[in-house]
Amino acid sequence: MNQHTVNRIRKFTADRDWDQFHSPANLAKSIVIEAAELLECFQWEEDKYNLQDVKEELADVMVYCQNLADKFGLDPDEIVNMKMEQNEAKYPVDKAKGKADKYDKL
Amino acid sequence: MNQHTVNRIRKFTADRDWDQFHSPANLAKSIVIEAAELLECFQWEEDKYNLQDVKEELADVMVYCQNLADKFGLDPDEIVNMKMEQNEAKYPVDKAKGKADKYDKL
Amino acid sequence: MNQHTVNRIRKFTADRDWDQFHSPANLAKSIVIEAAELLECFQWEEDKYNLQDVKEELADVMVYCQNLADKFGLDPDEIVNMKMEQNEAKYPVDKAKGKADKYDKL
Amino acid sequence: MNQHTVNRIRKFTADRDWDQFHSPANLAKSIVIEAAELLECFQWEEDKYNLQDVKEELADVMVYCQNLADKFGLDPDEIVNMKMEQNEAKYPVDKAKGKADKYDKL
Repeated sequence: MNQHTVNRIRKFTADRDWDQFHSPANLAKSIVIEAAELLECFQWEEDKYNLQDVKEELADVMVYCQNLADKFGLDPDEIVNMKMEQNEAKYPVDKAKGKADKYDKL
Repeated sequence: MNQHTVNRIRKFTADRDWDQFHSPANLAKSIVIEAAELLECFQWEEDKYNLQDVKEELADVMVYCQNLADKFGLDPDEIVNMKMEQNEAKYPVDKAKGKADKYDKL
Repeated sequence: MNQHTVNRIRKFTADRDWDQFHSPANLAKSIVIEAAELLECFQWEEDKYNLQDVKEELADVMVYCQNLADKFGLDPDEIVNMKMEQNEAKYPVDKAKGKADKYDKL
Repeated sequence: MNQHTVNRIRKFTADRDWDQFHSPANLAKSIVIEAAELLECFQWEEDKYNLQDVKEELADVMVYCQNLADKFGLDPDEIVNMKMEQNEAKYPVDKAKGKADKYDKL
């Protein structure tokens, strides 16, 4: 997300005085609640999704992720790169290529 | 996320030939699975979280969100701004300020 | 579940003095956390599940559901029959037969 | 659940010819989707829940759990007792009493 989008998310919360409800636990609950609404787009027939619904639910997840990152003063690029480094080490290309196995089964 | 981070996520998947597993439904499942692992950081005692765990699990959610956005060729800024516009309309400041009610209860 | 099983679940919690952690919100979190672990059995390749894992994760969900019912003094048969009555009304056989649509789309 | 309740759940699915949609993966998705709706009852203010909503969402989770058990011909009492045996071994009373730690941290 660019800075303009991040600022819009922050202003939305600040204008409504909602920081009081945004405990880390509540934001984590909200992320899983919205993630489940996103999954609902693919509940029974995976190929009959409504793309507009997918966009809205995915955006909801992303907004709450940004809220949680803000709560802890985290930089998304920093934590994602830290995690990708772990993933690259846990799933070496020569072992993981073309396989859906978890790293402890490779 | 900046372009470098996005490219790293894409390369990770491409190098492992994992696009075959990344159906929209599977990515939506993955987002909710990782979101639940994030919630686990706050399962019993909300204030006794391990920040390193929070960072890793939040990063996992963000990576799968980017994967799903890529799957549909979506621009995170575009869908988040589209959704924020809806949110701003559903939760007018004068009605929603300081309240945790859902928009249909305001 | 029969009474013996329900009693075993209750005794497990009581013996460990865990009722203090079993707030309704914490139990609801636990149900979704275990439900996501169950979903993980079907994350990438839906037909390559490990049945033993499925049994264990499904059991975990059921145990926390019983914990939450106990918390509110609810009888599973009573609430499930109440909900089935609603479902039967929302999804009349002649409209819903063979269709995966949500009731508001029927 | 007693046999009458279980039979009602089975008849509901059979009458609507919905077994075709009830793959194990789809039922697992449904369990997590309903579990997240249950969590939504406790999203922002844990003590301001609507008990009727809690009953309905908990019932939904229980119904899908029964559907998944049926799918595999599993007996809830059997799998729950199998899991409780594991839990009793992983969380010995003398080590776990009054603590919310995970078994590998005890």
